[in-house]
Amino acid sequence: MNEFDLIAAIRRQTSTLPDNGFEGIGDDCAILEWGDEALVFTTDALSEGVHFLRHTTTPEELGAKSLAVNLSDVAAMGIRPIAVLLTLSLPRTIDEPWVLAFMKGFTDLARTHNVALIGGDTTRSEGEIQISVTAIGRGPKRSLKRRSDARVGDVIFVSDALGGSAVGLRDLLAGNHHTLSAQQHRTPQPEVDAGEWLGSRPEVHAMMDLSDGLWSDVRHILKASHVGATVELENIPIAEQATLRDAVTGGEDYRLLLTADQQAAEVLSFDFMARFGRPLYPIGRIVEGERLCWLKKGKPTTIDWQGFAHFSH
Amino acid sequence: MNEFDLIAAIRRQTSTLPDNGFEGIGDDCAILEWGDEALVFTTDALSEGVHFLRHTTTPEELGAKSLAVNLSDVAAMGIRPIAVLLTLSLPRTIDEPWVLAFMKGFTDLARTHNVALIGGDTTRSEGEIQISVTAIGRGPKRSLKRRSDARVGDVIFVSDALGGSAVGLRDLLAGNHHTLSAQQHRTPQPEVDAGEWLGSRPEVHAMMDLSDGLWSDVRHILKASHVGATVELENIPIAEQATLRDAVTGGEDYRLLLTADQQAAEVLSFDFMARFGRPLYPIGRIVEGERLCWLKKGKPTTIDWQGFAHFSH
Repeated sequence: MNEFDLIAAIRRQTSTLPDNGFEGIGDDCAILEWGDEALVFTTDALSEGVHFLRHTTTPEELGAKSLAVNLSDVAAMGIRPIAVLLTLSLPRTIDEPWVLAFMKGFTDLARTHNVALIGGDTTRSEGEIQISVTAIGRGPKRSLKRRSDARVGDVIFVSDALGGSAVGLRDLLAGNHHTLSAQQHRTPQPEVDAGEWLGSRPEVHAMMDLSDGLWSDVRHILKASHVGATVELENIPIAEQATLRDAVTGGEDYRLLLTADQQAAEVLSFDFMARFGRPLYPIGRIVEGERLCWLKKGKPTTIDWQGFAHFSH
Repeated sequence: MNEFDLIAAIRRQTSTLPDNGFEGIGDDCAILEWGDEALVFTTDALSEGVHFLRHTTTPEELGAKSLAVNLSDVAAMGIRPIAVLLTLSLPRTIDEPWVLAFMKGFTDLARTHNVALIGGDTTRSEGEIQISVTAIGRGPKRSLKRRSDARVGDVIFVSDALGGSAVGLRDLLAGNHHTLSAQQHRTPQPEVDAGEWLGSRPEVHAMMDLSDGLWSDVRHILKASHVGATVELENIPIAEQATLRDAVTGGEDYRLLLTADQQAAEVLSFDFMARFGRPLYPIGRIVEGERLCWLKKGKPTTIDWQGFAHFSH
């Protein structure tokens, strides 16, 4: 059962439901506009044995990560997360200190980003640990960034070096739990401030977060915007110890992928550096057509690496 | 690990988080006011082996139930559910037809109540089936009903006969899957229309849904409103085949429990009957103090039945 096929089948089934003013199936979040403001909504589940292994992560790290991946989806819309709801299904082997440590990780990251916890449910699980988080964002309607807004001529940027999480996952699976990359894989830092800042810039057109990996995520923007792209392999920023392949196909980096008007791209980069002390990396261009073309020294090249679909698939 | 103790410990931990304008930890939903309108939010998880058994429910019924329990929480706030998000963690033993049947049950009930599905996530589970739903309601701010609004002198009502779900659960556990009560337990009907209608009536003060059972749920209102109550056992409407004990302690009926101004109570009942063709049942009174007093033929009586805490606890 392929997740993408199943989602497609479910979408056919649910296509007759009303939208009640919500927009954005296919974006990182659903959008509800309200006057000049908008609320956005997203949900993600983390499943033990699929998204994490109990012996390679602490409960505190897991609490932080389960929040981080959802905050990342909100940040990718260009506005700030304001609240979350959490459900936890816990096997009998989980004791109270574990839960409190999990909640410490969750709460500490929520506090860092000024996010409220507005609802929750804890239940027993007869199987493994299951975590589900719904995040809500709120901000000016004009800040919203959709996957469908890339325009021909736009510069494609990523907000940080990629592939670190993929290296971390390899480290973890090899038993090296204490590397920097392993730490990065276990506790991703969502781009909450950068997302809001980029949302406030009208020259930023499309945006999303890199959770599946550049290889698949660029295609999501192309498909939604009905455009093509060229990406220069040499320009992809590669995390320490990562390979180009990690940076292109590795998932769970939770950095931002965006497109911006070519006229304003240089100023945007400059201002981003002034604000965050790190560059925005231009990696390619939006072009006519619907194809993604990888360039090596300016020449089209073929890469046949597969996209990321979680380590245990 | 007692669920209530754990929730208390988690609340202490999260008490330092901002509220960001949300209200209502302790109510059926969290509330975000927005001009004259309000949005409400709730989340619930259903865990295989704890909340349901795979061989006593069809996937279609399970899909409907996982939605129903969340719609019930929104209805209990006095306004309509408008949208839901769903996460599903599914073991390898679950095939695509199962998922599509689950989604059919979910979607059919969503269509009945005009609810949008605005987000979701499906992941594999290494253990059992885990379902988590977040529901969003929207309506006039003045319609909101809180647990904390019961006033001394109020009449306490329930919106329908109680105990049917408890009988159904017994039937299921005894292998009698085809009784009406078993059907009722598997596919509760949330009081979406009645909740919205009662919300529109200013004489209705406090409201909540009966998920844990009358025995515990009345106390939630008393505690939140700092009042006491008398409940007349003879006036509690009992579902077919149920006992008084089922009606008092059985959970998962998903009917409404409300308090209303005594002056207007009779008209409210009359109008409810005219609108829904069934009575509102007056079962008691809100009084001074913080005690719940059960009355039998007008005299205080003691009942020592325990409240409902799911069948497998």
